[in-house]
Amino acid sequence: MLTSEELDRVCVVLVRARNPNNIGAAARAMHDFGLRHLRVVNDYAVPFESARSAIDASEVLANALVCASVAEAVADCTLVVGTTAVGERDLQHALLPLPEAAPRLRAELHRAIASDQPANAGRVALLFGSEKTGLSNEELSHCNFLLTVPMQQYEDLRHPSMNLGQAVAVCLYELLRDSSASSLDATPPSNTIPTATPNSIDSRITAAEQERLTALLGEVLEATEYTRRHPANSDPAQIRRLVRRMTVDASDAPIWMGILRQTLWKLRSSRTD
Amino acid sequence: MLTSEELDRVCVVLVRARNPNNIGAAARAMHDFGLRHLRVVNDYAVPFESARSAIDASEVLANALVCASVAEAVADCTLVVGTTAVGERDLQHALLPLPEAAPRLRAELHRAIASDQPANAGRVALLFGSEKTGLSNEELSHCNFLLTVPMQQYEDLRHPSMNLGQAVAVCLYELLRDSSASSLDATPPSNTIPTATPNSIDSRITAAEQERLTALLGEVLEATEYTRRHPANSDPAQIRRLVRRMTVDASDAPIWMGILRQTLWKLRSSRTD
Repeated sequence: MLTSEELDRVCVVLVRARNPNNIGAAARAMHDFGLRHLRVVNDYAVPFESARSAIDASEVLANALVCASVAEAVADCTLVVGTTAVGERDLQHALLPLPEAAPRLRAELHRAIASDQPANAGRVALLFGSEKTGLSNEELSHCNFLLTVPMQQYEDLRHPSMNLGQAVAVCLYELLRDSSASSLDATPPSNTIPTATPNSIDSRITAAEQERLTALLGEVLEATEYTRRHPANSDPAQIRRLVRRMTVDASDAPIWMGILRQTLWKLRSSRTD
Repeated sequence: MLTSEELDRVCVVLVRARNPNNIGAAARAMHDFGLRHLRVVNDYAVPFESARSAIDASEVLANALVCASVAEAVADCTLVVGTTAVGERDLQHALLPLPEAAPRLRAELHRAIASDQPANAGRVALLFGSEKTGLSNEELSHCNFLLTVPMQQYEDLRHPSMNLGQAVAVCLYELLRDSSASSLDATPPSNTIPTATPNSIDSRITAAEQERLTALLGEVLEATEYTRRHPANSDPAQIRRLVRRMTVDASDAPIWMGILRQTLWKLRSSRTD
């Protein structure tokens, strides 16, 4: 995650957004991820004023800057990155998929802070164009590079494009995506296929506890006559493997032991009735 | 990225979504990322019907399944993952941040395909709750584990929660996030399944089978008077979670069912002695 000082240097710039709901959604995503600086470039004031007057409008919207041009909106930024759907036009810029772009944004934030660049002269901007047309060539020309969110390519639709509010959320998510997690990602898989269950997250019971569980289960199988009726499944080694294959979380082990003990108690008390 | 075969095994389940725009946004994000299986669980048909009748409604919405319950919506899934805002409630489940959860979802998709589990008995579900309340405890009890999108923690707002359409977009983005990591993750083509570790590719039981196992266990707990003596452990949702936490291999499921049935038989025959 980014530090609060770093977060405070990220600007989201919405250029010619038309739909007030999308402007509101972008502001909400910024709030969710701890960003404060929204800048809006719009010839046409209605969408932004409408978003700002919505009942649930956030502080982000209340504090948004209205700018006359992209140049004005990014004036205090040392890195300006435009977002685009691939194939939108002949790109004159380097284009990076979002997962590769985000580390460059973070690196610039680190650099600006490490070099004591004042906040108002060391920001990073992420530009989003209008819902219909994206960013124009003139607007793109203010960018150092472009990023795109990798999406499905359909044969019938040459360039799918994301909803604006969703695109902002995805970009901010990636920007703040925990780096410990990405280093976890980078670990080559072991030769066994990792289990998808939560048991591998929690603590496992020890072999000794598994053995106690196995013994109790064996007693239940005897008492219920399972071993007599299904001898092929009842070899002690088979029962042990059965319990080993069933991964039991440490906190669940006492519950399973309790269930088995209660079953034995009931079977035995019924017998003597 | 995931293969089209893998994508085709991912289901998004919207539970009690209220806002048609959010249902539409979720469907749009699914289309953007190449997913097809939307399932909607809603007592109240209006939001979904309204979303489906929107002018720009996608094929995803047209093909969405309307389900009467979460159990029905996830019946053909071998891994069910709920989404939650941290702090929403006392969680009874393992909770992973999204970047750590996604590799587990991908691994389950790889596993299901590598082990030739048919598509209709080897899917993965991502559950999203209502905008206001998220997923209820009963709904969460159908999940194998939970994930959360890491967000800013504000002092005045104990638990920020994302807009539903944005949450779906962010989760699907992460699931498909292209990186060295996901290409490392990638399944080898089916003709080169590593022969060194055939045993690690076991098959999982579906949610429907887990539900049968849960029901049988519930009967045993009644018959043994466990529920009477340990009411604090015997809430139906708790028993469901207990079974979900215990991973059962498909080939072991009939053995466990047999053990439980035999136990019931014995308890009942003892009683009538």
